[in-house]
Amino acid sequence: MGIKVDLNSDLGESFGLYQIGNDENVLKYVTSANIACGFHAGDPVVMSKTVKLAADSNVGIGAHPGYPDLQGFGRRNMALSAEEVTAFVVYQVGALQAFAKGIGKKLQHVKAHGALYNTAAKDIKIARAIAQGIKMVDPDLIFLALANSKMVEAAHETGLRVAQEVFADRAYNPDGTLVARGTPGAVIHDKETAIPRVVKMVTEGKVTAITGEEINIQADSICVHGDNPQALKFVEEIREALLKAGVEITPLANFI
Amino acid sequence: MGIKVDLNSDLGESFGLYQIGNDENVLKYVTSANIACGFHAGDPVVMSKTVKLAADSNVGIGAHPGYPDLQGFGRRNMALSAEEVTAFVVYQVGALQAFAKGIGKKLQHVKAHGALYNTAAKDIKIARAIAQGIKMVDPDLIFLALANSKMVEAAHETGLRVAQEVFADRAYNPDGTLVARGTPGAVIHDKETAIPRVVKMVTEGKVTAITGEEINIQADSICVHGDNPQALKFVEEIREALLKAGVEITPLANFI
Amino acid sequence: MGIKVDLNSDLGESFGLYQIGNDENVLKYVTSANIACGFHAGDPVVMSKTVKLAADSNVGIGAHPGYPDLQGFGRRNMALSAEEVTAFVVYQVGALQAFAKGIGKKLQHVKAHGALYNTAAKDIKIARAIAQGIKMVDPDLIFLALANSKMVEAAHETGLRVAQEVFADRAYNPDGTLVARGTPGAVIHDKETAIPRVVKMVTEGKVTAITGEEINIQADSICVHGDNPQALKFVEEIREALLKAGVEITPLANFI
Amino acid sequence: MGIKVDLNSDLGESFGLYQIGNDENVLKYVTSANIACGFHAGDPVVMSKTVKLAADSNVGIGAHPGYPDLQGFGRRNMALSAEEVTAFVVYQVGALQAFAKGIGKKLQHVKAHGALYNTAAKDIKIARAIAQGIKMVDPDLIFLALANSKMVEAAHETGLRVAQEVFADRAYNPDGTLVARGTPGAVIHDKETAIPRVVKMVTEGKVTAITGEEINIQADSICVHGDNPQALKFVEEIREALLKAGVEITPLANFI
Repeated sequence: MGIKVDLNSDLGESFGLYQIGNDENVLKYVTSANIACGFHAGDPVVMSKTVKLAADSNVGIGAHPGYPDLQGFGRRNMALSAEEVTAFVVYQVGALQAFAKGIGKKLQHVKAHGALYNTAAKDIKIARAIAQGIKMVDPDLIFLALANSKMVEAAHETGLRVAQEVFADRAYNPDGTLVARGTPGAVIHDKETAIPRVVKMVTEGKVTAITGEEINIQADSICVHGDNPQALKFVEEIREALLKAGVEITPLANFI
Repeated sequence: MGIKVDLNSDLGESFGLYQIGNDENVLKYVTSANIACGFHAGDPVVMSKTVKLAADSNVGIGAHPGYPDLQGFGRRNMALSAEEVTAFVVYQVGALQAFAKGIGKKLQHVKAHGALYNTAAKDIKIARAIAQGIKMVDPDLIFLALANSKMVEAAHETGLRVAQEVFADRAYNPDGTLVARGTPGAVIHDKETAIPRVVKMVTEGKVTAITGEEINIQADSICVHGDNPQALKFVEEIREALLKAGVEITPLANFI
Repeated sequence: MGIKVDLNSDLGESFGLYQIGNDENVLKYVTSANIACGFHAGDPVVMSKTVKLAADSNVGIGAHPGYPDLQGFGRRNMALSAEEVTAFVVYQVGALQAFAKGIGKKLQHVKAHGALYNTAAKDIKIARAIAQGIKMVDPDLIFLALANSKMVEAAHETGLRVAQEVFADRAYNPDGTLVARGTPGAVIHDKETAIPRVVKMVTEGKVTAITGEEINIQADSICVHGDNPQALKFVEEIREALLKAGVEITPLANFI
Repeated sequence: MGIKVDLNSDLGESFGLYQIGNDENVLKYVTSANIACGFHAGDPVVMSKTVKLAADSNVGIGAHPGYPDLQGFGRRNMALSAEEVTAFVVYQVGALQAFAKGIGKKLQHVKAHGALYNTAAKDIKIARAIAQGIKMVDPDLIFLALANSKMVEAAHETGLRVAQEVFADRAYNPDGTLVARGTPGAVIHDKETAIPRVVKMVTEGKVTAITGEEINIQADSICVHGDNPQALKFVEEIREALLKAGVEITPLANFI
């Protein structure tokens, strides 16, 4: 059996009259969709439409829960208790799942959004709170988590299937965590470096850390963005490079 | 097999630090709980706690979706499209269902709240939009609807099981609809009249309309309130009168 | 003294990361800005920026209060009491006024938004509630109101200065009210008809009603939109036609 | 001229149907009211009523801005930028000021709420952002700030009048800051200790720190709560002890 990888992207981020993103185009390139659940973005009408759109494109349908902060797009950190995080995850994932079920589809995965994702990557209590919430909704759901983060640890503890997510344009520390934005070298701007790098992560399970040493990394899914033509072009080139390397690009549910 | 009836009440209406209601006491008297879903009242933490409380009391767990209007407690009418109503119902019912499923319980029913309930009682398009939303989440759910209203019609059209709800303290028009609040005689303040009246609705399926004629009514569930000691006393007296008349008081799922 | 008219447009409708409108371009053409106040659109950061932008463009700064319904963009009708409307107007206008005062500017006017505007045009109680709220914040504020509507009546009753607003692309009933959207002929799509029509309203105070008769109308301000290049082009042509007819285009405060 | 002090309390924290607090009773004991502004608590109708109630009681009317987090009652920390904090303060204080002005009253002071207060006490950037917002609304407003905190420093820098707030039931560090809740001894539960202690702060400007040394403290206002009968009793006893010591209890505007 050959090597497989998933490409995921955040979708369904419009709200009422407010439009964000380019969902129909992005869906041509990705295999899994993280759909906003009405807390940091999205609303019930948008969720309903986006779930249908994702289903029509045959991508894996995922819930993308975030902080209850539309104004901050879920990117402002909030001091929530573990109990609150679990309840917020159950609520949002349950709501999105209902739209999927309503058109005869099964929810594939859950990925936390923005500040919730970043906090859970480092804070095992918040990571566990998310995992607990996912398990309550459906223990078959895949927890799509930052590679080598506390979320992976929490998924293992909770008995959830986990998919590890990598970034083509980010540098890694020797322990496999992401180099924080703002640190020199944290973002890789050069496509000629980024693309072979992500192919290597997928095919060999290895990446060169910012310190120069080669480390292990499990790349089940690559996070991509499609909000501008340049970003879509980058996704297209990643796809081509992966296919050329013999990698099969397919939704998480087919191999996790 | 004897006559059966359900007693339902609205629960889980607190929000954050704000407390409303007397849920633990009310749960001693009712057999079904309509739990707020975070739009007009309730929040995910409150929902989680209230679902557990209802489960511990062995009452039927129901979702109580409303308009997205916490400030107006869902009592201010809003001009929503049918598409919006369906999406709002799927969202809220899906969220509440996830909390029930998370503790191994099945959702029993859905009852619309406040202005949404009142509008759907008269407007078949909105009633259908609710029914459609319920069916999308789970076609086995019971639609708890005002007796003789458009919601009953919509439930039949959609193929949903329906439970008809009556009020002990409200007058009825000859067509079986509620006399509008504000109309003289719309509210029955006298317990000595109200209690035998509700017993007759349950045991004989008949009620005397405000015009004096006796009409048919199907009383599957009685709506009760427990937010003050007087209200709880009234519920207790209704229960006693029903039991004395040989009626079994039991959750909807046992007989609908 | 020559004939004067104001051109007004809705601005500051972005929210958090969500962008709407083309404020910098629109400000080149209008003389008064109706700035959203955070209920149906806008947020405090957007308000702060938009007030500065309007001040830098030397246009009249106005508050644009609406229903508390971001998801519906203030376009869904809500059943609010007069007391609620007054309080919502005081709150929103007070908030916007503070941003203007903070940069040494005076608020010029208030115009209601969307469903609140439409309701107040016909319902004198809601129109009075708005007028009352405006007066509480500052009795010197100009109430920018639909020509011949209940808002004009309420402004007179309350002792507020009023500016009557007309639309270049809308038909009028013989009583001077707008022909409802959806009625055949309600919207004038033809520029060659619309532009001379609006010039006549401004210069002669007359317009041909949908029934063919000529009626009186007071055109203090023309409502324009600038969210797309076509709309901006239309505004530009209205401006040119007015200037050619000898009309001075200037903020409300200069002539009301 | 004798020694003067103000007693302040948080009021107007109800929201829609949700009731919190005991405002009418508390107003008998305090001289300044911090009124919630709709972000962490309160709504425009509640604000309107509370401002009237405070005016009728002749207490100083203050704005009590907080984080935009009703569900968390403004007590959950949020990572806001200085720009956001300034805009949020301008918005909330402007809104409250409009209600005061609407009944012919002048706003006396501003006190930050909950997590915003706690953050600003330690973070000079957030303290400055609040001060800047207050100044934009009205440079005559008094900044009611935790004694010896960064808010006092920011008020001085910005040229605002400042009133220093103390707590009867809290321990102080040798540098005059509050001992963090959770630290042993942080809260003084014993009235016999607390009351003479607060009298000494007011009359001598001194308090014994948790380390035993006597330090200087400026006590312009004492923060009190009135949400339960015990709390009100405590306030009554503080009042009596202050009056007995010859202190005049009067709104901030009379002596700052």
